[in-house]
Amino acid sequence: MTVPRIGLTAGDPGGIGPEIVVKTLARPALLPPAAYVLFADPAVIGAEEARLGLRLGLAALPAGAPAEAGSFLVPVPAPSGPVERGRATAENGESSFRAFEAAVAEARGGSLDAVVTAPISKTAWALAGRPFRGHTDYLERLYPGAVMAFWSERLKVALFSHHRPLREAVAAVRADGLAAFFKALHRALARLPGGPYRLLAAGLNPHAGEDGVLGREETEEIGPAVRAAAAEGVPVSGPYPPDVVFLKALGAKDAVAVALYHDQGLIAFKLEAFASGVNVTLGLPFVRTSPDHGTAFDIAGSGLADPRSMGEAVRLAAAFSATGS
Amino acid sequence: MTVPRIGLTAGDPGGIGPEIVVKTLARPALLPPAAYVLFADPAVIGAEEARLGLRLGLAALPAGAPAEAGSFLVPVPAPSGPVERGRATAENGESSFRAFEAAVAEARGGSLDAVVTAPISKTAWALAGRPFRGHTDYLERLYPGAVMAFWSERLKVALFSHHRPLREAVAAVRADGLAAFFKALHRALARLPGGPYRLLAAGLNPHAGEDGVLGREETEEIGPAVRAAAAEGVPVSGPYPPDVVFLKALGAKDAVAVALYHDQGLIAFKLEAFASGVNVTLGLPFVRTSPDHGTAFDIAGSGLADPRSMGEAVRLAAAFSATGS
Repeated sequence: MTVPRIGLTAGDPGGIGPEIVVKTLARPALLPPAAYVLFADPAVIGAEEARLGLRLGLAALPAGAPAEAGSFLVPVPAPSGPVERGRATAENGESSFRAFEAAVAEARGGSLDAVVTAPISKTAWALAGRPFRGHTDYLERLYPGAVMAFWSERLKVALFSHHRPLREAVAAVRADGLAAFFKALHRALARLPGGPYRLLAAGLNPHAGEDGVLGREETEEIGPAVRAAAAEGVPVSGPYPPDVVFLKALGAKDAVAVALYHDQGLIAFKLEAFASGVNVTLGLPFVRTSPDHGTAFDIAGSGLADPRSMGEAVRLAAAFSATGS
Repeated sequence: MTVPRIGLTAGDPGGIGPEIVVKTLARPALLPPAAYVLFADPAVIGAEEARLGLRLGLAALPAGAPAEAGSFLVPVPAPSGPVERGRATAENGESSFRAFEAAVAEARGGSLDAVVTAPISKTAWALAGRPFRGHTDYLERLYPGAVMAFWSERLKVALFSHHRPLREAVAAVRADGLAAFFKALHRALARLPGGPYRLLAAGLNPHAGEDGVLGREETEEIGPAVRAAAAEGVPVSGPYPPDVVFLKALGAKDAVAVALYHDQGLIAFKLEAFASGVNVTLGLPFVRTSPDHGTAFDIAGSGLADPRSMGEAVRLAAAFSATGS
């Protein structure tokens, strides 16, 4: 039996990443059959297993691509001594960056179908001199067409823009870029199971501008972009009022709401899928998912971290890998 | 027994307003004891009763302020012939405007404790030469400190700005105006039962600007406004990330999330309280509520209109009137 090969990272060692990864891999019966390959510092994972009283029994990765179901470890040693928990440090930033970089390199080389990333600290990456605003930012530099999206049973959302000031995000709503985005998103979605997917484009202004009375982006930019993409065969409609589009998408398995800025999409998604939402990067030659929460430094080391979103991220990565995207 | 005096309007005669008002008043056992005073064209209400097979038995309003529980009619004749359903017309706009104007005049004069408004069509008002963007816009011209808010059991949201293009709403996020808004909102909330309420201020940018990396409004405008209002005794905190603040407010009976623009608040509110949400105008000398939906021209006359939000609006108006605000 051929199983997908899924890389995992443990995220920032000072946050809840190692805990949710160990909790997830400790219950393989709840996971789809796959070769799970963890990129992490063996000392960090060993300490987490001891603390939680769990044994993963990670094997060394056999030479060549693994084809058997099981859990494996690729050691990525941390740069220095003991881990400091509960805050961003340069050492932890460098450690989580190296593990992520190693997993992505394997995926780019074709020996992994998917990468599932536990939360990192952007501040720690900055302290370590790794100037990326997160996993997605790193991937976007390798793959400029990458799309940040959020996936749950009930709601699917793709972001036209994400980590930029709202003022800039508003100014970036232009017909050309938006039409290209609809096309790129449609191509990326076409490689996933569960489709075909249709796109519901959000407007920018209250009531989608109400025929120009409350803003002109809908008539001058978004509407033309929708029509241009639709004319090339992209199943996209809108623009819909921003406070209506997510209700339209909710519960429709084939609908993906397109949000024009970070919080337009994330306000809706976090309310609907707080514990079970998954962050997905679309438009890569491999699958990448991650839980929809951060490092939670405040509860790191407490044993209280909820691994559900990490589990959902792993299950979605396996489901998306099944089609060999 | 003294009961509150609650005015109602039936909204646009071409929409679902008359239907939801008749359905609501037809089941007085589900409503709090009050004198319900409907401002409407008797012909419109009579036709709706006949169509739905319901009898309201509306009495003429006795001279002087009513003090007895019951349902009363103040006739506000429509300007012209038969009602056209399902679209915005000048006649229907003039009709709904006159009824609203009459109810507000009574409330201003002190003979009503509250006004509950069924949905009107802004387009119909414009066709009738009544250039207001809705009930709240009209009330804001009479009472410049009026605040548009949304109320449900699980989530309460107040809007710093509402019907303006997002670009303008972003530019309007300034410390002075925001601090004054927090103070005015706090004063208005202090007159309601269920308090004291605390305000949770939303940020404007992703992650509330992440210390200025993703936008400067949090450090330069919103943070200073929060501190200035707090220094004067307003229980306000934040700014919180926009995709977190509504989760913080959710389920906390004493928390009111302050949204900086229309959709920041309405995306959250409509997802959480679609059928039961109530629109409230705060900061008036009387209570004003309305259902959180529009005229629904597409189902007008079908008998399918859901009166739950109208019922909630009436119950909330009665609850707020009980303290004699």
